[in-house]
Amino acid sequence: MSQVNIKPLADRVLVEPAAAEEKTASGIIIPETAKEKPQRGTIVAVGPGKKDEPLTVKVGDEVLYGKFAGNEKITVEGTEYLIMRETDIIAIL
Amino acid sequence: MSQVNIKPLADRVLVEPAAAEEKTASGIIIPETAKEKPQRGTIVAVGPGKKDEPLTVKVGDEVLYGKFAGNEKITVEGTEYLIMRETDIIAIL
Amino acid sequence: MSQVNIKPLADRVLVEPAAAEEKTASGIIIPETAKEKPQRGTIVAVGPGKKDEPLTVKVGDEVLYGKFAGNEKITVEGTEYLIMRETDIIAIL
Amino acid sequence: MSQVNIKPLADRVLVEPAAAEEKTASGIIIPETAKEKPQRGTIVAVGPGKKDEPLTVKVGDEVLYGKFAGNEKITVEGTEYLIMRETDIIAIL
Amino acid sequence: MSQVNIKPLADRVLVEPAAAEEKTASGIIIPETAKEKPQRGTIVAVGPGKKDEPLTVKVGDEVLYGKFAGNEKITVEGTEYLIMRETDIIAIL
Amino acid sequence: MSQVNIKPLADRVLVEPAAAEEKTASGIIIPETAKEKPQRGTIVAVGPGKKDEPLTVKVGDEVLYGKFAGNEKITVEGTEYLIMRETDIIAIL
Amino acid sequence: MSQVNIKPLADRVLVEPAAAEEKTASGIIIPETAKEKPQRGTIVAVGPGKKDEPLTVKVGDEVLYGKFAGNEKITVEGTEYLIMRETDIIAIL
Repeated sequence: MSQVNIKPLADRVLVEPAAAEEKTASGIIIPETAKEKPQRGTIVAVGPGKKDEPLTVKVGDEVLYGKFAGNEKITVEGTEYLIMRETDIIAIL
Repeated sequence: MSQVNIKPLADRVLVEPAAAEEKTASGIIIPETAKEKPQRGTIVAVGPGKKDEPLTVKVGDEVLYGKFAGNEKITVEGTEYLIMRETDIIAIL
Repeated sequence: MSQVNIKPLADRVLVEPAAAEEKTASGIIIPETAKEKPQRGTIVAVGPGKKDEPLTVKVGDEVLYGKFAGNEKITVEGTEYLIMRETDIIAIL
Repeated sequence: MSQVNIKPLADRVLVEPAAAEEKTASGIIIPETAKEKPQRGTIVAVGPGKKDEPLTVKVGDEVLYGKFAGNEKITVEGTEYLIMRETDIIAIL
Repeated sequence: MSQVNIKPLADRVLVEPAAAEEKTASGIIIPETAKEKPQRGTIVAVGPGKKDEPLTVKVGDEVLYGKFAGNEKITVEGTEYLIMRETDIIAIL
Repeated sequence: MSQVNIKPLADRVLVEPAAAEEKTASGIIIPETAKEKPQRGTIVAVGPGKKDEPLTVKVGDEVLYGKFAGNEKITVEGTEYLIMRETDIIAIL
Repeated sequence: MSQVNIKPLADRVLVEPAAAEEKTASGIIIPETAKEKPQRGTIVAVGPGKKDEPLTVKVGDEVLYGKFAGNEKITVEGTEYLIMRETDIIAIL
């Protein structure tokens, strides 16, 4: 997992997408190749949450997330990340 | 029912779709083959629920659910599952 | 009225549609044959209601309901039922 | 005013449309013949209201209402009625 | 100002449109002839307001209002009125 | 700044648009000529605010506002004004 | 960072866009050139926040923001700024 010094706002998290299909703590997981296919990645930074609602995920969690248009892509020191809202995180693996 | 080590977030549940029409605790149930036909399956993992709203369904429940576009498909160790929100669960059988 | 062992979730109810136009406790009721025509039926199962809002209808009530696309059809032991939300129930007859 | 034994749910009311333009307690009232023209009628049954919000209209009130698509028509013992939500009632005459 | 015996429901008011451009308490006011041009009139009846929100305007107030499609027209004893929600009232003149 | 005797309702304010680009307390400000370009003006009347939410702007404030279709134009004693909601005010200059 | 004497209303902030790609406290950050690409800039003024919700960002923060159509452009003393809502700020760098 990369180290980044970015603080997402509110309920946003910074996710490093998984490079390829690989064995996770839950076993082999192959997301379907559908239009709204869930994707795998690792949480590298989390926001403070919204008012009275701290986030559930934490840095280091392997997660499945929906690949929505709203996700923002950025490249930090050559590594590509996604910034999304926690509600786009489907499950912790 | 399969064993999976996935933790759905918020009010999401992991459902293993029923393989075929079979007798359930409620008797023979044949969902209509309509555009929004309800489907049968078994709950295999549940999220913690939303703030102040724990989930009603539990692991092992046979359920009917609506087949909406929003449901996410994943394959874990060769078995196909759906991840959906509890609000997409129509009834416990 | 049929006996079914299905537990609708939240504010959903299971309704057995009336077989034909027949005299109810309120007299002869003929829903108009309009696009959104109300339909008659009998409640055969009710959900626990939503948080702090128990349901008003109970098993055995004859009801009028709107025939919306959102209603789910299922067949249990050869009898066809509808599952709908209580808000789709217009009146008790 | 007809007698009907129907219990509207929530904030719904049962209205018997006025047969023709006639003098009401407020004088001669002629709704405009516009696309969304208000209509006159008499309340013949009222629901219990929504949670913490009892209804304002009561059985016997002459009312003006908007003629929206959402209004449900039913015929009870040969008389045609409308079932609508109280929010569709514009004024008491 | 006309006298009418109509009780608007909730946050609705009955407005008698101004016959022509005339001097008001605020001076000569000429609404622009735009698509959504504000109109002048006099409040002739007010509803009880919504739950915990009494109305601000009172009978006799000269007001500016938006000419929206949602306004209902009625004719009482030969005089034409508009029924609208207080939120459609822009200002007291 | 003109004097007008108009009382906007709720969270509405009356704004006198700036005649031309001129130096303000914040210096020379040139709004971009874009589709949704912000405009400058002076507050000449303010509403009482919404329930539990008094307004922030006061009479005499120079402001930037978005030029939305929803703004109402009126002419009082020969001077043209806009009536808008405070949420359409972007900043105090 | 420029000095400006503008007070954004509510949850709005004034942002000076970054002139070019440059090293930030978090390292080299290259936003993707996508349709909804995040942009970098510096906060130069902040609003008081919404009722019971003070803002999280402060003057001087380097931020990533989404380039939405809703952002307002203004030029103050020759420098171009954007006014946006804090919810459009994605992360602090």
